[in-house]
Amino acid sequence: MTAPVRIALDAMGGDHGPSVVIAGAEISLIRHPDTSFLVFGRESEVRPILDRHPKVAAVSEFQHTEVAVRMDDKPSQALRAGRRVSSMWRAIEAVKRGEADVAVSAGNTGALMAMSKICLHTMAGIERPAIAGIWPTVRGESLVLDVGASIGADAQHLVDLAVMGSAMARIVFDLDRPTVGLLNVGVEEIKGVEAVRDAGQRLRALDMPGLDYHGFVEGDDIGRGTVDVVVTEGFSGNIALKTAEGTAKQIAEYLRASFGRTVWTRLGFLLARGAFKALKEKMDPRRSNGGVFLGLNGVVIKSHGGTDKLGFASAVDIGYDMVRYGLLAKISADLARYERGTFSPPTVPAEAAAS
Amino acid sequence: MTAPVRIALDAMGGDHGPSVVIAGAEISLIRHPDTSFLVFGRESEVRPILDRHPKVAAVSEFQHTEVAVRMDDKPSQALRAGRRVSSMWRAIEAVKRGEADVAVSAGNTGALMAMSKICLHTMAGIERPAIAGIWPTVRGESLVLDVGASIGADAQHLVDLAVMGSAMARIVFDLDRPTVGLLNVGVEEIKGVEAVRDAGQRLRALDMPGLDYHGFVEGDDIGRGTVDVVVTEGFSGNIALKTAEGTAKQIAEYLRASFGRTVWTRLGFLLARGAFKALKEKMDPRRSNGGVFLGLNGVVIKSHGGTDKLGFASAVDIGYDMVRYGLLAKISADLARYERGTFSPPTVPAEAAAS
Repeated sequence: MTAPVRIALDAMGGDHGPSVVIAGAEISLIRHPDTSFLVFGRESEVRPILDRHPKVAAVSEFQHTEVAVRMDDKPSQALRAGRRVSSMWRAIEAVKRGEADVAVSAGNTGALMAMSKICLHTMAGIERPAIAGIWPTVRGESLVLDVGASIGADAQHLVDLAVMGSAMARIVFDLDRPTVGLLNVGVEEIKGVEAVRDAGQRLRALDMPGLDYHGFVEGDDIGRGTVDVVVTEGFSGNIALKTAEGTAKQIAEYLRASFGRTVWTRLGFLLARGAFKALKEKMDPRRSNGGVFLGLNGVVIKSHGGTDKLGFASAVDIGYDMVRYGLLAKISADLARYERGTFSPPTVPAEAAAS
Repeated sequence: MTAPVRIALDAMGGDHGPSVVIAGAEISLIRHPDTSFLVFGRESEVRPILDRHPKVAAVSEFQHTEVAVRMDDKPSQALRAGRRVSSMWRAIEAVKRGEADVAVSAGNTGALMAMSKICLHTMAGIERPAIAGIWPTVRGESLVLDVGASIGADAQHLVDLAVMGSAMARIVFDLDRPTVGLLNVGVEEIKGVEAVRDAGQRLRALDMPGLDYHGFVEGDDIGRGTVDVVVTEGFSGNIALKTAEGTAKQIAEYLRASFGRTVWTRLGFLLARGAFKALKEKMDPRRSNGGVFLGLNGVVIKSHGGTDKLGFASAVDIGYDMVRYGLLAKISADLARYERGTFSPPTVPAEAAAS
């Protein structure tokens, strides 16, 4: 039997703290019994909850931490108050020390990324880490990265995102050679920034067994599921993500208003509530909860702060998969292959217009 | 009685050419009888259609043009083949010559923008034109600009977008002092690019009677209708727009699939079809069809290429309003006010974190 996956939990992260973290961990543990936990948090708050979840307690080691990073702390504040002593820092540090294979936190994104960078450092050959999110599409699911770890990108960073994203997609979607698209704009005259065009040329020239470069994609290709991995820099990635969330909420609001209009529409709603349930499940953000920090010497998973136990369980599941199926080894192997010199940009002809 | 609004029509633009353009013009004419048209296009194709729309023909002057810009022409191709001789160019030129007050085209965006820039030039004080789109929200409608005229923006360009967008919003939404937000990302650690932060400081320091600066907004604030005008540079604006369109289509597809599942959901759908009709109307892209080119010495409206006569009529309506309510004069007055020196950036304190 293989060794269990050791998951470090920041029990104080998120809007609901340990009650959601421990309950979510239990759901994931039932799905993956070969898991053990290292739980960091305030003893007075976490212990009683662990006592109510004996399955988790049985496979957990608990360590008391005095400080909890607040959801609205700025990264600089979080570092000042929480470095070395907070549950968030200690969960990440456990990965660094080899005591855990992955850290999962629902704490605030900026603080988690700042601590992860300082504690774990970026992988050799990677300048900046990224956050990859799983995006529901008409065809199933796609990865989108970077959804907000850093702003702006040169061509090299975009290529790194493509390489890291395809490694992650091979695991999450169980694909041999995921398709990768570069997010761009469709106005003919300008056709994107130079970094995106340059990255397109480089990706076309790469010969990677685990990455199928598709070409440019536009914003509406994300929901369409045109490619398995959508690559963009963090500013536009974050705006795309938030805009899609806003649009989904907007349509849900329209739907509610429309169905409340008359007796007939309300009756129709009652008869069709199975359909709405299916729709709601399809759109449920808890199903794909868990942003993966890529490009660090260790795996860190960011759960949405406001999620419930089901959502947190998804984040733990993603962490489990990333470890069990060797995310870091896959990325390292791909980066090594890429740096070994399969790439020679000056000889590449200019890329044709977007697909 | 005031003089009629003189509208130049590129009858050859769009996927369906004159059949949609002339039929759409008729719908708009019925709504605004104080309209006259200057119609440019191939005589053999346009004349028969004008003959079938005698109301439009009665207020139109027709001018034959040999060349039609194709929907997939690159701007450079369009300029080479269509400068001075295409229906698109001639419609824009009519505005320049003072023979028309506004040009409306459903032709390709890149070509239309390239020709508009060359023919009309940018307004004094404006370096780059922008495209403003009307975005349906939970609260009603908002403007978003730039949705793809140019990529990247310094702080000055973002401020210009805010000034031009608020002038347009005063007309389109009949507001005295529309609220304006700068699109930004919410990750604490990075909180946006420098140009956006800098523009935020400048806008806060501006004292404009017709512009109420709200602060930063995120992607999900667009659909929520948090502000009347959302300002961003063209790359992220285009990606936000396309991503929202893609998400709306994706949810529509989910809905269709959900309601086809069982006899009950199908029956529910029948009973509630009034609700779906209301939803469809709410989401109907034809209602808010018409991107307005801002920052040029003349008004040019871009209709969606694939729209039908109702959609094209909306674009003509927007053109009518822009002229009738003095868009260019409003923008000029605001720019003059702004340049007169109400702005002094060095004394402004650093802006607080995003709202």
